[in-house]
Amino acid sequence: MMLTGMHVAIIGGDARQLEVIRKLVELDAKLSLVGFDQLAHHFTGVTKMSIEEVDFADLDAIILPVHGTTLDGKVNSVFSHEPIPFTEEMVQKTAKRCTVYSGISNSYLDELMKKTGRKYIQLFERDDVAIYNSIPTAEGTVMMVIQHTDFTIHGSRIAVLGLGRVGMTVARTFAALGAKVKVGARRSEHLARITEMGLEPFHLNDLEKEVRDIDVCVNTVPHLIVTASVIAKMPAHTLIIDLASKPGGTDFRYAEKRGVKAILAPGLPGVVAPKTAGQIIANVLAQLLYQDLQKRKENKQ
Amino acid sequence: MMLTGMHVAIIGGDARQLEVIRKLVELDAKLSLVGFDQLAHHFTGVTKMSIEEVDFADLDAIILPVHGTTLDGKVNSVFSHEPIPFTEEMVQKTAKRCTVYSGISNSYLDELMKKTGRKYIQLFERDDVAIYNSIPTAEGTVMMVIQHTDFTIHGSRIAVLGLGRVGMTVARTFAALGAKVKVGARRSEHLARITEMGLEPFHLNDLEKEVRDIDVCVNTVPHLIVTASVIAKMPAHTLIIDLASKPGGTDFRYAEKRGVKAILAPGLPGVVAPKTAGQIIANVLAQLLYQDLQKRKENKQ
Repeated sequence: MMLTGMHVAIIGGDARQLEVIRKLVELDAKLSLVGFDQLAHHFTGVTKMSIEEVDFADLDAIILPVHGTTLDGKVNSVFSHEPIPFTEEMVQKTAKRCTVYSGISNSYLDELMKKTGRKYIQLFERDDVAIYNSIPTAEGTVMMVIQHTDFTIHGSRIAVLGLGRVGMTVARTFAALGAKVKVGARRSEHLARITEMGLEPFHLNDLEKEVRDIDVCVNTVPHLIVTASVIAKMPAHTLIIDLASKPGGTDFRYAEKRGVKAILAPGLPGVVAPKTAGQIIANVLAQLLYQDLQKRKENKQ
Repeated sequence: MMLTGMHVAIIGGDARQLEVIRKLVELDAKLSLVGFDQLAHHFTGVTKMSIEEVDFADLDAIILPVHGTTLDGKVNSVFSHEPIPFTEEMVQKTAKRCTVYSGISNSYLDELMKKTGRKYIQLFERDDVAIYNSIPTAEGTVMMVIQHTDFTIHGSRIAVLGLGRVGMTVARTFAALGAKVKVGARRSEHLARITEMGLEPFHLNDLEKEVRDIDVCVNTVPHLIVTASVIAKMPAHTLIIDLASKPGGTDFRYAEKRGVKAILAPGLPGVVAPKTAGQIIANVLAQLLYQDLQKRKENKQ
């Protein structure tokens, strides 16, 4: 699998993009790097340039950082002092075949991509990326539980809320460390899977009853579920880790009032394992770019 | 199991001793607490006093902190401003039946206990305590590996040196998190056990060869084994965590020179899980005190 002949612009980002660059260099793609002027490392055959120097008409793909742009259309880069503008005009210059990639989106990018009509892929919405990312997320959760409690995970009672892509990994990880794990879900197939995993299933309707004896609560459900009346039932020493995207699913105001420690922790992969997180993005991107290249070759034949 | 009729002095210590106090109160022992004057919490039926007020002749047991005394015979307490003297004269006042407990010993305590001839138990030398303590030790190691690497434990290559009480727990824990774990040992029964655990065994004679492809090295062997020539063979990104008691089994000077991160991390249980570490001590102490009490009753009959 090689990407020879593909021209890809990588605009801004953090340490994770270095893994993307490394991978695409290895696969022989032609790279235009924007926003990496402070990066000491030199990649063979790769050109660092300003956004004005990019030959947009020649591009097969544009790779934005995980967070895409700011709401006013700037791309942040930890390897550059200046945010980089990313405008509709630029995307309009690209050929129809050009695909734009980011991790997550926002209203600015949504509108821009709608107007330009180019193919737009949000990598973090893909199941494969979410499942791979659940591994560093679970390890980051383990780290935080060890840091913020005075007891071992081994032997403690942990409730995981939700058996989605993250919930399953978190539940399995804590069980592997010797915790007594119960998992709350609603769908009957999820309750079946929790049972199959050797863990204790419960229906989220019974959440208030089920939190009475726990030491740690890990939430993955992306809407308010750990309410004041749930928190009121927890032992005072319970630690809540909320992994749902902002603003999380916990009533943080009430938790603080009751003296229950509650931590919102989204985006753990980039924090605890930027190299692995970068490799996850790089591997999936390489696969998607290769599929694009194959399709183009087939169309030419 | 009750300790009614036992008179125990608890002298100094840290948060772990609070679990000991809690447990012995629960079992109805008579407690004399020295060095807890700054502790806000009041335990029912427990007397806080200065060392001069202790009725040594009446004591069945003296419980020193995990670290025993300083080398000049003082007991430190996080709940008191002043170190507490612990002298031969005090121990001589006790009845012959009085047993002294600490976690580990030192030359001062060794000599004092030899002179006085009282029964002296170092709890951390017991296999059961060492095995229970290996659980928070392994969790602390997990925490440090997550903190000090940019990759996940899952999928990384980890070498554990030694299959003792700590090595076995550490190896099992990292394997449970999805790491590729190899364990180095010398004894054939250890190599057999490593194989049975589904891990990759190797002989410590081959250490230099085996570290060429690892990401993390966890040492539990209490003498110099991670030598300069071993470190020279490791990839530059390898993280070394040394769990052996001070000064560890790693050539830290050479590791620093070569730019390999190496961390000496003894005493993790008291750091990452003081409550659990305290409960471990409390449970074993309660058992030992109860056995003492039973023996005394039998002798009286």
